[in-house]
Amino acid sequence: MGQFDVAIAEVITICGTFSFAVSGAFAAMQKRLDVFGVLIIAFATSVGGGTLRDILLGDTPVFWLKSANYSLLILVTAIVAVIFWKRIKSLKITLFLFDSLGLGFFTVVGLQKGLAYDLSPGICVALGTVTGCFGGIIRDILLNNIPLIFRKEIYATACIVGGIVYLLLDYIGVDPTFVKVISVAVIFLIRIIAVKYNLTLPRMY
Amino acid sequence: MGQFDVAIAEVITICGTFSFAVSGAFAAMQKRLDVFGVLIIAFATSVGGGTLRDILLGDTPVFWLKSANYSLLILVTAIVAVIFWKRIKSLKITLFLFDSLGLGFFTVVGLQKGLAYDLSPGICVALGTVTGCFGGIIRDILLNNIPLIFRKEIYATACIVGGIVYLLLDYIGVDPTFVKVISVAVIFLIRIIAVKYNLTLPRMY
Amino acid sequence: MGQFDVAIAEVITICGTFSFAVSGAFAAMQKRLDVFGVLIIAFATSVGGGTLRDILLGDTPVFWLKSANYSLLILVTAIVAVIFWKRIKSLKITLFLFDSLGLGFFTVVGLQKGLAYDLSPGICVALGTVTGCFGGIIRDILLNNIPLIFRKEIYATACIVGGIVYLLLDYIGVDPTFVKVISVAVIFLIRIIAVKYNLTLPRMY
Repeated sequence: MGQFDVAIAEVITICGTFSFAVSGAFAAMQKRLDVFGVLIIAFATSVGGGTLRDILLGDTPVFWLKSANYSLLILVTAIVAVIFWKRIKSLKITLFLFDSLGLGFFTVVGLQKGLAYDLSPGICVALGTVTGCFGGIIRDILLNNIPLIFRKEIYATACIVGGIVYLLLDYIGVDPTFVKVISVAVIFLIRIIAVKYNLTLPRMY
Repeated sequence: MGQFDVAIAEVITICGTFSFAVSGAFAAMQKRLDVFGVLIIAFATSVGGGTLRDILLGDTPVFWLKSANYSLLILVTAIVAVIFWKRIKSLKITLFLFDSLGLGFFTVVGLQKGLAYDLSPGICVALGTVTGCFGGIIRDILLNNIPLIFRKEIYATACIVGGIVYLLLDYIGVDPTFVKVISVAVIFLIRIIAVKYNLTLPRMY
Repeated sequence: MGQFDVAIAEVITICGTFSFAVSGAFAAMQKRLDVFGVLIIAFATSVGGGTLRDILLGDTPVFWLKSANYSLLILVTAIVAVIFWKRIKSLKITLFLFDSLGLGFFTVVGLQKGLAYDLSPGICVALGTVTGCFGGIIRDILLNNIPLIFRKEIYATACIVGGIVYLLLDYIGVDPTFVKVISVAVIFLIRIIAVKYNLTLPRMY
């Protein structure tokens, strides 16, 4: 990846790490875990997707081992979430909002990394989807919830659509930064609309 | 591995991928997941065992990232399963049959890959067993079922017996293709007989 | 790592493998699994933490693939546990004791391996904590229990405190063997005291 591309990937990873740290901390506090449980869930949700992606690609040691900055960001984010819990716990949409943001961020950076490894475009969409969804799956399994990905709302579909949008914009020559920003926005908006209007996929069988 | 060995491993992997895609799709449809949920479960069940095997061995990027054919096969298989759901959903044995087939296929190719990495024979049997069982474990955890491996029926034992048969036939010089076919058949038959006659292992404690 | 350091890490890994094999076998027998289920749980609990650690670091093929000794140790340990089940199953503290021992052993060897990979000290504490806790998490997820790490008692905190003690003793120049032994003891004692006196972390929110 070019140097600018690496910088963009880094910014998006930081945004995704922050978003999933908030959603993980919130979900843990809703389950009334102690402070360390909250930190652990925030951490697992934030690094889970990127860790799986890097393990599948063979990019080891994984990113959060190589730099302590990610763990510091998660720690600070979780602590701030704990401090502000009383003020925002009534905002039920918060977890969902930050989860949808993180979903968008991590799907895009996962797809981008797949392209950097010269994987076929369809596989890059799959890799981005796995990267985006896995953190939430870990969070839900550890908290003994049914993973969001299997509920009625559109979840992984948003990642796949966003990934296809990424490839299309990239193909027609849109500026790389806009490609990523638009793709993140598409995934986020699909989630927002799907939950707001209760859109579900048909079972079709 | 010799070139012919690689070709055989490839054919068995494709058979196993197909079998587990069917069993995963079926299990998901029994839980009435939407179409994407069915695809995701089919995918996770198919690639789970081989992915864990390759991660443990360090063979990355994992196989389904390097070639889009596996994902295409899973996608087509799952779609066909969805289309034919109404006609076969009364056949309760279908999931179990395809799961037992996939178990056999993936155990053998996992063992073979361990031998190619010069691991000790006993460890190769363990690696084959892990490869064979893990897809089903992922499927059951994601669908919130008690993993088949922990129910009363003989499951991992079939893999271990099949693995030992593999090593014995290989040792006495049977043709490599027959070694694999017979081992797959042994695992499959043990599962069939165990479920048909309700065979269980004694608790012994 | 120096040669003596490697030997110490090996001894601690063996102790941890044994301890977690006992705790895994016990937990499985409490759930009345068949003999193979007991072996599988004992195996997963023993190798789970070290396997995740080595995957995150990129040290593949993982340790239990490279040498059959670990699997042999787990097999023998689980068999002995099964044989002695009737005599010790009334000792409810046994599972907890061996789990706390394994927690200490694996946290220390995980931290040590991180230092050998030149990771920052804080990240080494995190890696040790992940290595120590993950075996128990796998055991609890497979047995459909709420992971110990999320219950009221102090669990991961013990690992983090032990890790910090390790770094401090190492910094002031204590003999490396004593650093490890004391750190293991600290983690073990924190667990003992926390459970005996029902110490819990405050929720703080």
